Amino acid sequence: MTGYPAREAFPTRWNDNDQYGHLNNTVYYVAMDTAINAWMIRETGLRPVQDGVIAVCAASSCEFLASAAFPERLEVGIGVERLGGSSVTWSLAILREGEDEPLATGRFVHVFVDATTRRPAAIPMPIRTAIEARLLA
Amino acid sequence: MTGYPAREAFPTRWNDNDQYGHLNNTVYYVAMDTAINAWMIRETGLRPVQDGVIAVCAASSCEFLASAAFPERLEVGIGVERLGGSSVTWSLAILREGEDEPLATGRFVHVFVDATTRRPAAIPMPIRTAIEARLLA
Amino acid sequence: MTGYPAREAFPTRWNDNDQYGHLNNTVYYVAMDTAINAWMIRETGLRPVQDGVIAVCAASSCEFLASAAFPERLEVGIGVERLGGSSVTWSLAILREGEDEPLATGRFVHVFVDATTRRPAAIPMPIRTAIEARLLA
Amino acid sequence: MTGYPAREAFPTRWNDNDQYGHLNNTVYYVAMDTAINAWMIRETGLRPVQDGVIAVCAASSCEFLASAAFPERLEVGIGVERLGGSSVTWSLAILREGEDEPLATGRFVHVFVDATTRRPAAIPMPIRTAIEARLLA
Repeated sequence: MTGYPAREAFPTRWNDNDQYGHLNNTVYYVAMDTAINAWMIRETGLRPVQDGVIAVCAASSCEFLASAAFPERLEVGIGVERLGGSSVTWSLAILREGEDEPLATGRFVHVFVDATTRRPAAIPMPIRTAIEARLLA
Repeated sequence: MTGYPAREAFPTRWNDNDQYGHLNNTVYYVAMDTAINAWMIRETGLRPVQDGVIAVCAASSCEFLASAAFPERLEVGIGVERLGGSSVTWSLAILREGEDEPLATGRFVHVFVDATTRRPAAIPMPIRTAIEARLLA
Repeated sequence: MTGYPAREAFPTRWNDNDQYGHLNNTVYYVAMDTAINAWMIRETGLRPVQDGVIAVCAASSCEFLASAAFPERLEVGIGVERLGGSSVTWSLAILREGEDEPLATGRFVHVFVDATTRRPAAIPMPIRTAIEARLLA
Repeated sequence: MTGYPAREAFPTRWNDNDQYGHLNNTVYYVAMDTAINAWMIRETGLRPVQDGVIAVCAASSCEFLASAAFPERLEVGIGVERLGGSSVTWSLAILREGEDEPLATGRFVHVFVDATTRRPAAIPMPIRTAIEARLLA
Protein backbone atom coordinates (compact mmCIF):
# COMPACT_ATOMS: atom_id res chain seq x y z
CA MET A 1 0.00 0.00 0.00
CA THR A 2 1.32 3.40 -0.87
CA GLY A 3 1.61 5.60 2.16
CA TYR A 4 2.52 2.78 4.56
CA PRO A 5 6.05 1.58 3.74
CA ALA A 6 6.32 -0.59 6.88
CA ARG A 7 3.97 -3.19 8.30
CA GLU A 8 3.91 -4.69 11.78
CA ALA A 9 1.96 -7.80 12.82
CA PHE A 10 -0.78 -7.33 15.41
CA PRO A 11 -2.48 -10.58 16.43
CA THR A 12 -5.69 -10.04 18.36
CA ARG A 13 -6.45 -11.28 21.88
CA TRP A 14 -9.54 -12.81 23.41
CA ASN A 15 -10.39 -9.77 25.49
CA ASP A 16 -9.94 -7.34 22.58
CA ASN A 17 -13.52 -8.21 21.63
CA ASP A 18 -16.05 -6.25 23.61
CA GLN A 19 -19.60 -7.31 24.33
CA TYR A 20 -20.62 -6.54 20.76
CA GLY A 21 -18.35 -9.37 19.63
CA HIS A 22 -15.88 -7.19 17.73
CA LEU A 23 -12.64 -5.44 18.55
CA ASN A 24 -13.28 -2.54 20.85
CA ASN A 25 -12.40 0.81 19.31
CA THR A 26 -9.65 1.38 21.88
CA VAL A 27 -7.74 -1.68 20.62
CA TYR A 28 -6.98 0.12 17.35
CA TYR A 29 -5.07 2.73 19.32
CA VAL A 30 -3.21 -0.02 21.18
CA ALA A 31 -2.30 -1.47 17.79
CA MET A 32 -1.00 1.87 16.48
CA ASP A 33 0.96 2.63 19.66
CA THR A 34 2.47 -0.86 19.71
CA ALA A 35 3.40 -0.86 16.02
CA ILE A 36 5.10 2.54 16.09
CA ASN A 37 7.11 1.69 19.19
CA ALA A 38 8.03 -1.79 17.95
CA TRP A 39 9.25 -0.25 14.69
CA MET A 40 11.27 2.44 16.49
CA ILE A 41 12.85 -0.05 18.90
CA ARG A 42 13.83 -2.47 16.17
CA GLU A 43 14.74 -0.08 13.37
CA THR A 44 16.17 2.92 15.20
CA GLY A 45 17.57 1.52 18.42
CA LEU A 46 15.07 3.37 20.63
CA ARG A 47 15.42 2.11 24.21
CA PRO A 48 12.32 3.39 26.02
CA VAL A 49 13.60 2.96 29.56
CA GLN A 50 17.21 4.03 29.26
CA ASP A 51 17.03 6.83 26.67
CA GLY A 52 17.11 10.45 27.77
CA VAL A 53 14.59 11.46 25.12
CA ILE A 54 11.21 9.74 24.84
CA ALA A 55 8.21 10.09 22.53
CA VAL A 56 4.88 11.10 24.05
CA CYS A 57 1.55 11.22 22.27
CA ALA A 58 0.26 14.75 21.68
CA ALA A 59 -2.73 13.84 19.52
CA SER A 60 -4.25 10.83 17.83
CA SER A 61 -7.28 9.97 15.75
CA CYS A 62 -8.85 7.02 14.01
CA GLU A 63 -11.58 6.41 11.43
CA PHE A 64 -13.21 3.02 11.67
CA LEU A 65 -14.23 1.58 8.30
CA ALA A 66 -14.93 -2.09 8.99
CA SER A 67 -14.94 -4.32 12.05
CA ALA A 68 -12.63 -7.16 13.01
CA ALA A 69 -12.72 -9.79 15.73
CA PHE A 70 -10.50 -12.17 17.65
CA PRO A 71 -8.91 -14.51 16.55
CA GLU A 72 -8.17 -12.53 13.38
CA ARG A 73 -4.56 -11.57 12.74
CA LEU A 74 -4.19 -7.91 11.95
CA GLU A 75 -1.35 -5.76 10.71
CA VAL A 76 -0.53 -2.09 11.13
CA GLY A 77 0.70 -0.16 8.11
CA ILE A 78 3.08 2.63 9.11
CA GLY A 79 3.99 5.79 7.25
CA VAL A 80 5.13 9.27 8.19
CA GLU A 81 3.17 12.26 7.04
CA ARG A 82 5.30 14.98 8.58
CA LEU A 83 8.72 15.02 10.21
CA GLY A 84 9.32 18.15 12.28
CA GLY A 85 12.14 19.20 14.56
CA SER A 86 10.79 17.52 17.66
CA SER A 87 7.60 15.89 16.41
CA VAL A 88 6.54 13.14 14.03
CA THR A 89 3.09 12.74 12.52
CA TRP A 90 2.60 9.07 11.77
CA SER A 91 -0.10 7.87 9.41
CA LEU A 92 -1.38 4.40 10.09
CA ALA A 93 -3.67 1.77 8.68
CA ILE A 94 -5.13 -1.28 10.40
CA LEU A 95 -5.48 -4.17 7.97
CA ARG A 96 -6.10 -7.89 7.94
CA GLU A 97 -2.91 -9.90 7.50
CA GLY A 98 -1.84 -9.78 3.87
CA GLU A 99 -4.72 -7.57 2.74
CA ASP A 100 -4.63 -4.04 1.39
CA GLU A 101 -8.04 -2.69 2.27
CA PRO A 102 -7.78 -0.86 5.61
CA LEU A 103 -10.24 -1.63 8.40
CA ALA A 104 -9.28 1.68 9.93
CA THR A 105 -6.94 4.57 9.25
CA GLY A 106 -5.36 6.69 11.92
CA ARG A 107 -2.90 9.38 12.80
CA PHE A 108 -0.56 9.72 15.75
CA VAL A 109 1.45 12.82 16.66
CA HIS A 110 4.50 12.02 18.75
CA VAL A 111 6.42 14.78 20.44
CA PHE A 112 9.90 13.91 21.59
CA VAL A 113 10.63 15.20 25.07
CA ASP A 114 13.37 15.05 27.64
CA ALA A 115 12.57 12.02 29.83
CA THR A 116 13.10 13.99 33.02
CA THR A 117 11.84 17.50 32.33
CA ARG A 118 9.23 16.42 29.75
CA ARG A 119 10.14 19.47 27.64
CA PRO A 120 10.36 19.16 23.83
CA ALA A 121 13.67 17.88 22.53
CA ALA A 122 15.13 17.28 19.08
CA ILE A 123 14.24 13.96 17.52
CA PRO A 124 17.25 11.69 18.16
CA MET A 125 19.36 11.43 15.00
CA PRO A 126 19.06 7.61 14.57
CA ILE A 127 15.27 7.93 14.63
CA ARG A 128 15.28 10.86 12.20
CA THR A 129 17.61 9.04 9.84
CA ALA A 130 15.59 5.82 9.85
CA ILE A 131 12.32 7.67 9.23
CA GLU A 132 13.83 9.64 6.37
CA ALA A 133 15.29 6.54 4.78
CA ARG A 134 12.37 4.18 5.21
CA LEU A 135 9.08 5.91 5.92
CA LEU A 136 9.02 9.24 4.14
CA ALA A 137 7.69 9.25 0.60
CA MET B 1 -17.43 23.72 32.35
CA THR B 2 -19.43 24.94 29.41
CA GLY B 3 -19.63 22.40 26.65
CA TYR B 4 -19.67 19.40 29.00
CA PRO B 5 -23.01 19.35 30.84
CA ALA B 6 -22.44 15.85 32.32
CA ARG B 7 -19.51 14.43 34.20
CA GLU B 8 -18.67 10.79 34.90
CA ALA B 9 -16.08 9.55 37.40
CA PHE B 10 -13.13 7.61 36.01
CA PRO B 11 -10.75 6.32 38.69
CA THR B 12 -7.45 5.12 37.30
CA ARG B 13 -5.98 1.64 37.65
CA TRP B 14 -2.48 0.42 38.37
CA ASN B 15 -1.88 -0.87 34.86
CA ASP B 16 -3.16 2.31 33.19
CA ASN B 17 0.33 3.69 33.71
CA ASP B 18 2.73 2.57 31.04
CA GLN B 19 6.50 2.31 31.40
CA TYR B 20 6.84 6.08 31.26
CA GLY B 21 4.96 6.24 34.58
CA HIS B 22 1.90 8.04 33.22
CA LEU B 23 -1.46 7.03 31.82
CA ASN B 24 -1.01 5.45 28.43
CA ASN B 25 -2.69 7.41 25.65
CA THR B 26 -5.09 4.55 24.94
CA VAL B 27 -6.58 4.85 28.43
CA TYR B 28 -8.11 8.21 27.51
CA TYR B 29 -10.16 6.47 24.83
CA VAL B 30 -11.21 3.82 27.37
CA ALA B 31 -12.33 6.68 29.60
CA MET B 32 -14.37 8.34 26.87
CA ASP B 33 -15.95 5.07 25.71
CA THR B 34 -16.79 4.10 29.29
CA ALA B 35 -18.24 7.50 30.21
CA ILE B 36 -20.49 7.76 27.16
CA ASN B 37 -21.84 4.24 27.61
CA ALA B 38 -22.32 4.64 31.36
CA TRP B 39 -24.24 7.85 30.74
CA MET B 40 -26.42 6.28 28.05
CA ILE B 41 -27.16 3.19 30.17
CA ARG B 42 -28.09 5.20 33.23
CA GLU B 43 -29.79 8.21 31.64
CA THR B 44 -31.45 6.73 28.57
CA GLY B 45 -32.11 3.11 29.42
CA LEU B 46 -29.68 1.76 26.82
CA ARG B 47 -29.28 -1.98 27.33
CA PRO B 48 -26.22 -2.95 25.28
CA VAL B 49 -26.88 -6.68 25.11
CA GLN B 50 -30.64 -6.82 24.64
CA ASP B 51 -31.32 -3.78 22.47
CA GLY B 52 -31.88 -4.17 18.75
CA VAL B 53 -29.98 -0.97 18.00
CA ILE B 54 -26.43 -0.43 19.22
CA ALA B 55 -23.91 2.40 18.94
CA VAL B 56 -20.63 1.70 17.16
CA CYS B 57 -17.67 4.04 16.95
CA ALA B 58 -17.11 5.49 13.47
CA ALA B 59 -14.37 7.93 14.38
CA SER B 60 -12.58 9.27 17.44
CA SER B 61 -9.79 11.64 18.27
CA CYS B 62 -7.99 13.06 21.27
CA GLU B 63 -5.60 15.91 22.02
CA PHE B 64 -3.38 15.35 25.02
CA LEU B 65 -2.62 18.51 26.97
CA ALA B 66 -1.18 17.29 30.27
CA SER B 67 -0.35 13.93 31.77
CA ALA B 68 -1.95 12.05 34.66
CA ALA B 69 -1.00 8.96 36.61
CA PHE B 70 -2.48 6.26 38.83
CA PRO B 71 -3.79 6.62 41.53
CA GLU B 72 -5.31 9.92 40.40
CA ARG B 73 -9.08 10.07 40.13
CA LEU B 74 -10.20 11.46 36.80
CA GLU B 75 -13.53 12.55 35.40
CA VAL B 76 -14.89 12.68 31.89
CA GLY B 77 -16.88 15.74 30.84
CA ILE B 78 -19.55 14.87 28.27
CA GLY B 79 -21.25 17.09 25.73
CA VAL B 80 -22.84 16.64 22.34
CA GLU B 81 -21.62 18.64 19.42
CA ARG B 82 -23.95 17.30 16.75
CA LEU B 83 -27.05 15.13 16.86
CA GLY B 84 -27.88 13.59 13.48
CA GLY B 85 -30.50 11.08 12.38
CA SER B 86 -28.42 8.02 13.17
CA SER B 87 -25.21 9.50 14.55
CA VAL B 88 -24.04 11.47 17.55
CA THR B 89 -20.83 13.46 17.77
CA TRP B 90 -19.81 13.58 21.40
CA SER B 91 -17.32 16.11 22.69
CA LEU B 92 -15.36 15.04 25.72
CA ALA B 93 -12.88 16.32 28.24
CA ILE B 94 -10.67 14.35 30.60
CA LEU B 95 -10.18 16.23 33.86
CA ARG B 96 -8.91 15.69 37.36
CA GLU B 97 -11.72 15.16 39.87
CA GLY B 98 -13.30 18.50 40.66
CA GLU B 99 -11.07 20.51 38.34
CA ASP B 100 -11.99 22.47 35.23
CA GLU B 101 -8.76 22.46 33.25
CA PRO B 102 -8.85 19.52 30.83
CA LEU B 103 -5.92 17.12 30.63
CA ALA B 104 -7.22 16.08 27.23
CA THR B 105 -10.10 16.86 24.92
CA GLY B 106 -11.64 14.40 22.54
CA ARG B 107 -14.37 13.62 20.09
CA PHE B 108 -16.29 10.42 19.48
CA VAL B 109 -18.65 9.77 16.58
CA HIS B 110 -21.18 7.07 17.35
CA VAL B 111 -23.30 5.62 14.59
CA PHE B 112 -26.36 3.71 15.70
CA VAL B 113 -26.78 0.45 13.81
CA ASP B 114 -29.07 -2.54 13.80
CA ALA B 115 -27.43 -5.06 16.15
CA THR B 116 -27.84 -7.88 13.63
CA THR B 117 -27.33 -6.34 10.21
CA ARG B 118 -24.99 -3.58 11.45
CA ARG B 119 -26.69 -1.14 9.06
CA PRO B 120 -27.40 2.43 10.19
CA ALA B 121 -30.59 2.88 12.20
CA ALA B 122 -32.40 5.83 13.70
CA ILE B 123 -31.19 6.88 17.13
CA PRO B 124 -33.62 5.31 19.62
CA MET B 125 -36.07 7.93 20.85
CA PRO B 126 -35.17 7.70 24.59
CA ILE B 127 -31.54 8.37 23.73
CA ARG B 128 -32.40 11.25 21.41
CA THR B 129 -34.71 12.78 23.99
CA ALA B 130 -32.16 12.54 26.80
CA ILE B 131 -29.40 14.05 24.70
CA GLU B 132 -31.62 16.93 23.60
CA ALA B 133 -32.74 17.62 27.14
CA ARG B 134 -29.43 17.30 28.92
CA LEU B 135 -26.42 17.50 26.63
CA LEU B 136 -27.18 19.86 23.77
CA ALA B 137 -26.37 23.49 24.33
CA MET C 1 -16.56 -8.91 56.22
CA THR C 2 -14.12 -10.68 58.46
CA GLY C 3 -10.84 -11.33 56.76
CA TYR C 4 -10.97 -8.17 54.64
CA PRO C 5 -10.46 -5.16 56.95
CA ALA C 6 -10.06 -2.69 54.05
CA ARG C 7 -12.19 -2.09 51.00
CA GLU C 8 -11.30 -0.22 47.80
CA ALA C 9 -13.78 0.91 45.14
CA PHE C 10 -13.42 -0.62 41.69
CA PRO C 11 -15.87 0.77 39.14
CA THR C 12 -16.06 -1.29 35.97
CA ARG C 13 -15.33 -0.07 32.45
CA TRP C 14 -17.08 -0.68 29.15
CA ASN C 15 -14.32 -2.87 27.76
CA ASP C 16 -14.05 -4.99 30.93
CA ASN C 17 -16.93 -7.01 29.52
CA ASP C 18 -15.80 -9.59 27.02
CA GLN C 19 -17.88 -11.05 24.22
CA TYR C 20 -19.83 -13.16 26.70
CA GLY C 21 -21.22 -9.93 28.17
CA HIS C 22 -19.57 -10.26 31.57
CA LEU C 23 -16.34 -9.13 33.15
CA ASN C 24 -13.45 -11.01 31.65
CA ASN C 25 -11.61 -13.15 34.21
CA THR C 26 -8.44 -11.08 33.81
CA VAL C 27 -10.24 -7.97 35.09
CA TYR C 28 -10.44 -9.52 38.57
CA TYR C 29 -6.66 -9.58 38.70
CA VAL C 30 -6.55 -5.96 37.54
CA ALA C 31 -8.93 -5.18 40.40
CA MET C 32 -6.78 -6.95 42.99
CA ASP C 33 -3.52 -5.41 41.70
CA THR C 34 -5.08 -1.94 41.63
CA ALA C 35 -6.65 -2.23 45.08
CA ILE C 36 -3.49 -3.44 46.81
CA ASN C 37 -1.35 -0.73 45.22
CA ALA C 38 -3.90 2.02 45.88
CA TRP C 39 -4.07 0.96 49.51
CA MET C 40 -0.28 0.87 49.85
CA ILE C 41 0.18 4.25 48.18
CA ARG C 42 -2.47 5.95 50.29
CA GLU C 43 -1.96 4.18 53.63
CA THR C 44 1.76 3.49 53.69
CA GLY C 45 3.33 6.19 51.55
CA LEU C 46 4.53 3.78 48.86
CA ARG C 47 5.81 5.78 45.87
CA PRO C 48 6.12 3.24 43.06
CA VAL C 49 8.41 5.28 40.82
CA GLN C 50 10.79 6.87 43.32
CA ASP C 51 11.14 4.16 45.96
CA GLY C 52 14.20 1.94 46.04
CA VAL C 53 12.17 -1.11 47.02
CA ILE C 54 9.20 -2.24 44.95
CA ALA C 55 6.66 -5.07 45.24
CA VAL C 56 6.53 -7.63 42.44
CA CYS C 57 3.96 -10.38 42.07
CA ALA C 58 5.36 -13.86 42.69
CA ALA C 59 2.07 -15.76 42.55
CA SER C 60 -1.64 -15.08 42.31
CA SER C 61 -4.86 -17.01 42.09
CA CYS C 62 -8.58 -16.45 41.92
CA GLU C 63 -11.77 -18.46 42.30
CA PHE C 64 -14.72 -17.10 40.37
CA LEU C 65 -18.04 -17.61 42.16
CA ALA C 66 -20.48 -15.35 40.32
CA SER C 67 -20.31 -13.04 37.34
CA ALA C 68 -20.53 -9.27 37.13
CA ALA C 69 -20.85 -6.83 34.27
CA PHE C 70 -20.28 -3.20 33.37
CA PRO C 71 -21.64 -0.75 34.54
CA GLU C 72 -21.69 -2.42 37.98
CA ARG C 73 -19.61 -0.84 40.70
CA LEU C 74 -17.40 -3.35 42.44
CA GLU C 75 -15.21 -3.26 45.52
CA VAL C 76 -12.13 -5.18 46.53
CA GLY C 77 -11.87 -6.46 50.08
CA ILE C 78 -8.28 -6.56 51.29
CA GLY C 79 -6.73 -8.62 54.04
CA VAL C 80 -3.32 -10.07 54.79
CA GLU C 81 -2.92 -13.75 55.36
CA ARG C 82 0.81 -13.86 55.97
CA LEU C 83 3.43 -11.20 56.57
CA GLY C 84 6.98 -12.49 56.00
CA GLY C 85 10.35 -10.76 55.99
CA SER C 86 10.23 -9.73 52.36
CA SER C 87 6.88 -11.04 51.21
CA VAL C 88 3.20 -10.41 51.85
CA THR C 89 0.37 -12.81 51.07
CA TRP C 90 -2.74 -10.75 50.46
CA SER C 91 -6.19 -12.29 50.58
CA LEU C 92 -8.78 -10.53 48.48
CA ALA C 93 -12.46 -10.58 47.69
CA ILE C 94 -14.27 -9.01 44.78
CA LEU C 95 -17.73 -7.81 45.82
CA ARG C 96 -20.54 -5.64 44.56
CA GLU C 97 -20.53 -2.20 46.18
CA GLY C 98 -21.93 -2.46 49.69
CA GLU C 99 -22.48 -6.22 49.55
CA ASP C 100 -20.82 -8.96 51.57
CA GLU C 101 -21.13 -11.97 49.32
CA PRO C 102 -17.95 -12.25 47.24
CA LEU C 103 -18.17 -12.68 43.48
CA ALA C 104 -14.63 -13.97 43.62
CA THR C 105 -11.90 -14.61 46.14
CA GLY C 106 -8.22 -14.37 45.41
CA ARG C 107 -4.70 -14.38 46.71
CA PHE C 108 -1.68 -12.33 45.73
CA VAL C 109 1.88 -12.95 46.88
CA HIS C 110 4.01 -9.83 46.69
CA VAL C 111 7.76 -10.07 47.08
CA PHE C 112 9.55 -6.83 47.86
CA VAL C 113 12.68 -6.39 45.79
CA ASP C 114 15.35 -3.81 45.22
CA ALA C 115 14.15 -1.70 42.29
CA THR C 116 17.49 -1.94 40.53
CA THR C 117 18.83 -5.41 41.24
CA ARG C 118 15.38 -7.03 41.62
CA ARG C 119 16.72 -9.07 44.53
CA PRO C 120 14.53 -9.65 47.60
CA ALA C 121 14.58 -6.86 50.16
CA ALA C 122 13.04 -6.31 53.56
CA ILE C 123 9.50 -4.96 53.52
CA PRO C 124 9.83 -1.18 54.08
CA MET C 125 8.96 -0.36 57.68
CA PRO C 126 6.00 2.00 56.94
CA ILE C 127 4.36 -0.76 54.89
CA ARG C 128 4.99 -3.40 57.55
CA THR C 129 3.65 -1.15 60.27
CA ALA C 130 0.49 -0.24 58.36
CA ILE C 131 -0.24 -3.87 57.50
CA GLU C 132 0.25 -4.96 61.10
CA ALA C 133 -1.97 -2.18 62.39
CA ARG C 134 -4.78 -2.38 59.88
CA LEU C 135 -4.86 -5.62 57.92
CA LEU C 136 -3.62 -8.43 60.13
CA ALA C 137 -6.23 -10.22 62.20
CA MET D 1 8.40 -29.35 26.66
CA THR D 2 6.65 -32.27 28.23
CA GLY D 3 3.31 -31.31 29.65
CA TYR D 4 2.57 -28.66 27.03
CA PRO D 5 1.87 -30.42 23.71
CA ALA D 6 0.63 -27.24 21.99
CA ARG D 7 2.17 -23.78 21.76
CA GLU D 8 0.52 -20.52 20.74
CA ALA D 9 2.36 -17.30 19.86
CA PHE D 10 1.77 -14.30 22.13
CA PRO D 11 3.56 -11.15 20.97
CA THR D 12 3.64 -8.44 23.61
CA ARG D 13 2.23 -4.92 23.29
CA TRP D 14 3.55 -1.54 24.32
CA ASN D 15 1.05 -1.09 27.14
CA ASP D 16 1.62 -4.60 28.55
CA ASN D 17 4.59 -3.10 30.40
CA ASP D 18 3.57 -1.37 33.58
CA GLN D 19 5.46 1.42 35.29
CA TYR D 20 8.08 -1.02 36.53
CA GLY D 21 9.09 -1.59 32.89
CA HIS D 22 8.02 -5.23 32.74
CA LEU D 23 4.90 -7.12 31.75
CA ASN D 24 2.20 -6.52 34.31
CA ASN D 25 1.14 -9.71 36.09
CA THR D 26 -2.36 -9.51 34.64
CA VAL D 27 -0.97 -9.85 31.10
CA TYR D 28 0.00 -13.46 31.82
CA TYR D 29 -3.65 -14.26 32.40
CA VAL D 30 -4.57 -12.50 29.16
CA ALA D 31 -1.98 -14.69 27.45
CA MET D 32 -3.39 -17.90 28.94
CA ASP D 33 -7.02 -16.94 28.18
CA THR D 34 -6.12 -15.96 24.61
CA ALA D 35 -4.04 -19.07 23.92
CA ILE D 36 -6.66 -21.52 25.19
CA ASN D 37 -9.45 -19.86 23.21
CA ALA D 38 -7.35 -19.53 20.05
CA TRP D 39 -6.50 -23.22 20.28
CA MET D 40 -10.13 -24.23 20.85
CA ILE D 41 -11.40 -22.05 17.99
CA ARG D 42 -8.83 -23.33 15.52
CA GLU D 43 -8.54 -26.96 16.60
CA THR D 44 -12.04 -27.80 17.77
CA GLY D 45 -14.32 -25.50 15.84
CA LEU D 46 -15.46 -23.55 18.92
CA ARG D 47 -17.50 -20.52 17.80
CA PRO D 48 -17.74 -18.32 20.91
CA VAL D 49 -20.66 -16.20 19.75
CA GLN D 50 -22.90 -18.72 18.01
CA ASP D 51 -22.38 -21.84 20.13
CA GLY D 52 -24.97 -22.88 22.70
CA VAL D 53 -22.29 -24.02 25.14
CA ILE D 54 -19.49 -21.71 26.24
CA ALA D 55 -16.48 -22.08 28.54
CA VAL D 56 -16.30 -19.83 31.60
CA CYS D 57 -13.37 -19.54 33.97
CA ALA D 58 -14.02 -21.03 37.41
CA ALA D 59 -10.51 -20.67 38.79
CA SER D 60 -7.06 -19.68 37.66
CA SER D 61 -3.60 -19.24 39.11
CA CYS D 62 -0.11 -18.31 38.07
CA GLU D 63 3.41 -18.51 39.49
CA PHE D 64 5.77 -15.88 38.17
CA LEU D 65 9.34 -17.11 37.80
CA ALA D 66 11.05 -14.49 35.65
CA SER D 67 10.06 -11.20 34.07
CA ALA D 68 9.57 -10.27 30.42
CA ALA D 69 9.05 -6.99 28.64
CA PHE D 70 7.73 -5.53 25.41
CA PRO D 71 8.79 -5.99 22.60
CA GLU D 72 9.62 -9.60 23.48
CA ARG D 73 7.69 -12.30 21.66
CA LEU D 74 6.25 -14.84 24.04
CA GLU D 75 4.54 -18.19 23.61
CA VAL D 76 2.02 -20.05 25.71
CA GLY D 77 2.51 -23.78 26.20
CA ILE D 78 -0.82 -25.59 26.58
CA GLY D 79 -1.56 -28.91 28.21
CA VAL D 80 -4.52 -30.50 29.93
CA GLU D 81 -4.18 -31.80 33.44
CA ARG D 82 -7.70 -33.06 33.95
CA LEU D 83 -10.64 -33.61 31.61
CA GLY D 84 -13.94 -33.93 33.48
CA GLY D 85 -17.53 -34.18 32.31
CA SER D 86 -18.12 -30.45 32.07
CA SER D 87 -14.78 -29.00 33.08
CA VAL D 88 -11.22 -28.87 31.82
CA THR D 89 -8.16 -28.06 33.90
CA TRP D 90 -5.59 -26.55 31.57
CA SER D 91 -1.92 -26.34 32.54
CA LEU D 92 0.00 -23.54 30.95
CA ALA D 93 3.47 -22.14 30.62
CA ILE D 94 4.56 -18.70 29.45
CA LEU D 95 7.84 -18.87 27.59
CA ARG D 96 10.03 -16.78 25.34
CA GLU D 97 9.65 -17.70 21.68
CA GLY D 98 11.55 -20.89 20.98
CA GLU D 99 12.74 -21.36 24.56
CA ASP D 100 11.88 -24.11 27.02
CA GLU D 101 12.39 -22.43 30.37
CA PRO D 102 9.04 -21.04 31.55
CA LEU D 103 8.79 -17.45 32.72
CA ALA D 104 5.58 -18.44 34.46
CA THR D 105 3.40 -21.48 34.92
CA GLY D 106 -0.33 -21.37 35.36
CA ARG D 107 -3.57 -23.25 35.63
CA PHE D 108 -7.01 -22.44 34.27
CA VAL D 109 -10.22 -24.31 35.14
CA HIS D 110 -12.86 -23.90 32.47
CA VAL D 111 -16.41 -24.99 33.14
CA PHE D 112 -18.60 -25.44 30.12
CA VAL D 113 -22.03 -23.90 30.59
CA ASP D 114 -25.19 -23.35 28.59
CA ALA D 115 -24.77 -19.90 26.99
CA THR D 116 -28.24 -18.81 28.08
CA THR D 117 -28.83 -20.39 31.48
CA ARG D 118 -25.13 -20.45 32.46
CA ARG D 119 -25.67 -23.89 34.01
CA PRO D 120 -22.99 -26.58 33.61
CA ALA D 121 -23.19 -28.56 30.38
CA ALA D 122 -21.29 -31.47 28.91
CA ILE D 123 -18.08 -30.55 27.11
CA PRO D 124 -18.99 -30.46 23.38
CA MET D 125 -17.78 -33.63 21.70
CA PRO D 126 -15.42 -31.96 19.16
CA ILE D 127 -13.63 -30.21 22.00
CA ARG D 128 -13.39 -33.39 24.08
CA THR D 129 -12.09 -35.36 21.14
CA ALA D 130 -9.45 -32.79 20.22
CA ILE D 131 -8.23 -32.51 23.80
CA GLU D 132 -8.00 -36.30 24.16
CA ALA D 133 -6.14 -36.64 20.89
CA ARG D 134 -3.73 -33.76 21.22
CA LEU D 135 -3.36 -32.44 24.74
CA LEU D 136 -3.73 -35.32 27.18
CA ALA D 137 -0.58 -37.21 28.04
